[in-house]
Amino acid sequence: MTKDVTVAIDAMGGDHGPSVTVAAALRCLARDPALNIVLVGVADALNAQLRTLKSSTDARLRVHHASEVVDMDESPALAMRNKKDSSMRVAINLVKSGEAGACVSAGNTGALMATARFVLKMLPGIERPAIASELPTIKGRTFVLDLGANVDCTAEHLLQFGIMGAMLVSALDQRDAPSVGLLNIGEEEIKGNEIVKQAAELLRHSGLNFYGNVEGDDIYKGTTDVVVCDGFVGNVALKTSEGLAKMISTMLREEFKRNVFTRIAGLIALPVLRAFKKRVDPRRYNGATLLGLRGVVVKSHGGADRYAFEHAIEQAAREVRNHVQQRITEKMAVLQKEVA
Amino acid sequence: MTKDVTVAIDAMGGDHGPSVTVAAALRCLARDPALNIVLVGVADALNAQLRTLKSSTDARLRVHHASEVVDMDESPALAMRNKKDSSMRVAINLVKSGEAGACVSAGNTGALMATARFVLKMLPGIERPAIASELPTIKGRTFVLDLGANVDCTAEHLLQFGIMGAMLVSALDQRDAPSVGLLNIGEEEIKGNEIVKQAAELLRHSGLNFYGNVEGDDIYKGTTDVVVCDGFVGNVALKTSEGLAKMISTMLREEFKRNVFTRIAGLIALPVLRAFKKRVDPRRYNGATLLGLRGVVVKSHGGADRYAFEHAIEQAAREVRNHVQQRITEKMAVLQKEVA
Repeated sequence: MTKDVTVAIDAMGGDHGPSVTVAAALRCLARDPALNIVLVGVADALNAQLRTLKSSTDARLRVHHASEVVDMDESPALAMRNKKDSSMRVAINLVKSGEAGACVSAGNTGALMATARFVLKMLPGIERPAIASELPTIKGRTFVLDLGANVDCTAEHLLQFGIMGAMLVSALDQRDAPSVGLLNIGEEEIKGNEIVKQAAELLRHSGLNFYGNVEGDDIYKGTTDVVVCDGFVGNVALKTSEGLAKMISTMLREEFKRNVFTRIAGLIALPVLRAFKKRVDPRRYNGATLLGLRGVVVKSHGGADRYAFEHAIEQAAREVRNHVQQRITEKMAVLQKEVA
Repeated sequence: MTKDVTVAIDAMGGDHGPSVTVAAALRCLARDPALNIVLVGVADALNAQLRTLKSSTDARLRVHHASEVVDMDESPALAMRNKKDSSMRVAINLVKSGEAGACVSAGNTGALMATARFVLKMLPGIERPAIASELPTIKGRTFVLDLGANVDCTAEHLLQFGIMGAMLVSALDQRDAPSVGLLNIGEEEIKGNEIVKQAAELLRHSGLNFYGNVEGDDIYKGTTDVVVCDGFVGNVALKTSEGLAKMISTMLREEFKRNVFTRIAGLIALPVLRAFKKRVDPRRYNGATLLGLRGVVVKSHGGADRYAFEHAIEQAAREVRNHVQQRITEKMAVLQKEVA
């Protein structure tokens, strides 16, 4: 039986606000009978959106009013200081108070991270939150972290990322020892910088299923279940991938539009191209999790559409149901006992 | 009129050795009447390969014997110390002595870099060589550096990479002020690490056409002509791109092979897919240049085929003809005068 779980949604966040978040919430409720949702935001706007979508009253859905909205380009520090009644802050408060098991936001990443860290605090032994996200691979999927929360990392931070990533995969996939790779470069003389070398040592003695160094291409080969890197490198890898994918799809479209023959070829190939596109659809991978906090916080892409935002909500529910935090806490406790 | 140029080729280097390097050399000679080539390597092997390819004697081609070969996985330090008569070392010596304007090798990257630096020395003001390579973009192409020569960079190194990249593009494309972007991450709170912030300051006052920060996706958008980053980040970006491109092509192939209908669709779409593939064919971008040395050294991918290796040879000839080193030296002199 699926466990009951409540997800608080920052319904005002993201480029599209309630038109996406409310619609996605309703779809998730319809699909998951053990899911409860709290829509946090300006009540009038949310109720209006619910009416537009002709939603019947649902005992599993409630609107929680919050008067303010954090802008996408607002300074995280100012947002945290001045907007105590923002939809983002109130949604996180609901996790803190235990009314919700998780919170999902498509809003300002910096503000979400700063606020979540301030309100929820870190898990014991974890110094910094990390952003983890699933990416498609030839074999299936892999989780990469950190994707941008931390630009200057120590070897200990990378170790903690490895632990958090492994616990996330073991929770979500019910697996014992997911493999962890450390992102490095393969030049013969210079196998990575000092911090990465030290991190490899720490990971080797962590009790994790540490595979060793991996290179950038190993992400999409699916060489390991988890790929660990600092937030600068991870963010560049992710954004570079987005850029390349976009270039490839633009060029393919251009080639198929070149003349009447290529257009016909394109029409014939369309079902195949659609099937391919579905496999790598970034919307299916929407929902980066902020690991290391005392509470599940999932960040949706700001530009997410309804379908993509549904995935972020589902990701949040899955993490609560599989006790990701508890696993991280337990693993950290074991490690610290060994060190002591 | 095209200027006469002599390129020394480490004919034993790479996964395929003379079967690729000699064949590529002959093709380049046939195409470029002002090109001279010195094939460096085990003379018997090279002459045998020339006979196999039924090459008539050509006044513009000569074989220069070198008795040793650097292995692909050999320690760069050991290769440099123990193999003074390697095809790689001798080819670089020919650049040092002025017999050749450039050298091309598909061999061991670490050994090539260490040997080239030791034999040729750095240009005045440049502290470290950087690996630069062209990448395709939606708009055309962009040069990214460093791609793996330096894992721990200072802000000054990044400035020097910017200067070298800009001079390379201005030489190759005969352009005055190519735009330079600094690879960074876009998280709201944390705009990059300290070194990148300092590098941005230096670049802003360098007299270059500095665009400012760019993110990973800007590489393939072609936002700037040059993208500057440290070698760790650059290598991860490049390898991640390779991995993603491979995954996409594998999955596309799988989708077209799914059943008889998709196979037919694939046949019909084939010319379009081929045209697309040609546009992003990595072989067309083969030939990373080791910038900052007193001499042109171009590194070909180890697995390059004849077509790809031809591009590396052409890249080398183009750099000599357009005086890349001289431009870097002049720009560095101007900068140092300003600082002094």
